Amino acid sequence: MQETIYLNGEILPADQAKIHVSDLGLLRGYGIFDFFRAIDGKPIFMEDHLDRFENSARLMNLPIPENRDTLRAIILDLIIKNPHQLLGIKMIMTGGYSLDGYTPAEKSNLIILPKPFSFKESRQSMKLLSLEYQREIPEIKTLNYAVPILAIPKMKAIGAEDVIYHKDGFISELSRSNVFIVKNEKIITPKEGVLYGISRKHVLSFGKKQFEVEERAVSMKEFYEADEVFTTGSTKRVIAIGQVDNHIFSEGKIGKVTSKLQELFLEEEKSYA
Amino acid sequence: MQETIYLNGEILPADQAKIHVSDLGLLRGYGIFDFFRAIDGKPIFMEDHLDRFENSARLMNLPIPENRDTLRAIILDLIIKNPHQLLGIKMIMTGGYSLDGYTPAEKSNLIILPKPFSFKESRQSMKLLSLEYQREIPEIKTLNYAVPILAIPKMKAIGAEDVIYHKDGFISELSRSNVFIVKNEKIITPKEGVLYGISRKHVLSFGKKQFEVEERAVSMKEFYEADEVFTTGSTKRVIAIGQVDNHIFSEGKIGKVTSKLQELFLEEEKSYA
Repeated sequence: MQETIYLNGEILPADQAKIHVSDLGLLRGYGIFDFFRAIDGKPIFMEDHLDRFENSARLMNLPIPENRDTLRAIILDLIIKNPHQLLGIKMIMTGGYSLDGYTPAEKSNLIILPKPFSFKESRQSMKLLSLEYQREIPEIKTLNYAVPILAIPKMKAIGAEDVIYHKDGFISELSRSNVFIVKNEKIITPKEGVLYGISRKHVLSFGKKQFEVEERAVSMKEFYEADEVFTTGSTKRVIAIGQVDNHIFSEGKIGKVTSKLQELFLEEEKSYA
Repeated sequence: MQETIYLNGEILPADQAKIHVSDLGLLRGYGIFDFFRAIDGKPIFMEDHLDRFENSARLMNLPIPENRDTLRAIILDLIIKNPHQLLGIKMIMTGGYSLDGYTPAEKSNLIILPKPFSFKESRQSMKLLSLEYQREIPEIKTLNYAVPILAIPKMKAIGAEDVIYHKDGFISELSRSNVFIVKNEKIITPKEGVLYGISRKHVLSFGKKQFEVEERAVSMKEFYEADEVFTTGSTKRVIAIGQVDNHIFSEGKIGKVTSKLQELFLEEEKSYA
């Protein structure tokens, strides 16, 4: 059975989720998105994601066609109409149907796509390819992923499943998740030039109850000398980074702090579900 | 009457030019495009544009679903089906309908959109806003225009109609056209970090028959001290840049070399039409 989606005020079967090619997200990459999960019908960290979505919209000058209450009601309705134990919900908003193919329209296009979701349970840790890059507008969750997608063949060649960005000797983030290092049980994550992830926010929040926590620039040297390295994101929760290029972290094992945070993350989620 | 377009093997009325939201151009900005004009049914510099389109596709690892002969036949058919004296033809190709919303599909989505075109005849020269920026993959005509579109309110506030990019003290290009400076009747245009425009190519080619021509880095200092500054592009031909921010070029007049190149450009076009 196919999913039920939302498109500009209409609730439709997924195969009818079509937009005209004059959409400015398609023509010019002008748009934003957000993604979160629902477990057993309960959205996880939804208000955080709606906060960020609204903030991305404001920074991109994109009017949201629905207010927060309506948006929430639409999402909850879609969760009921798509009864999967684990559901991913992607919200996309673009500059609308542009008359001249460049200038944003007065009305944004808003799409909400629920889809069954599953974690890659088999993997214990991630292998990454390092990539010199800085996202253009890092604080906004924009639609632009051309550079990391272009790197997929390079990733595959070394068996990596994602990239980690660095620029001017400092690391920033993975293509779709944040990065943390652990040194002497202190948790450190880059502060500038990154997307402020919702999982990142929660890890910082509950992490500081048990560990010392710092948000600041992290050099590549410090990164490679870390005791543990992990990534956080809505599709990943907390996952150890086991290898970047040829460098192996934590002697190939999951670090103690990473393990503890994985446990705390699941507890945090349970308080929502 | 609405236009007739091409979408993945089908010839359709423009209002049916709709793609599913799982398109990777929309979801992740992963795609390329090109644009050229037809005058009185004759495409201008079409083979150059097809060369560039194929090159963009190759660099982005996007398979083109049609070979050159078929592509040319489709375009010529669309020109006949859309009998406008001046027609703009936009070709868009994306990473296709992605299964996981990130990895390019085996089959690209190819869209060809003809649309009546008109030059902004009223303007004698352009006013620009300077913007510190470098396109991410400058040699590919990608779909990513988030940064310049985000600058539209700033542009409008000073009455500018486009931006000119600079980085580390050097200028590169406008958002959708190339830039040239003239100093002592020598024509100079940036060589690196720019899209290799088809109009740029023709101006360099016929320009060097009458003037000295250089492709090399152009500093901002050199730019602001130029005798004349102009831009070239398929939607503009050759247009003088009259002002950038508060700086006025050529005492507000169209320079001699710019005028001459405008004349030669029209002659070059006529040899195709």
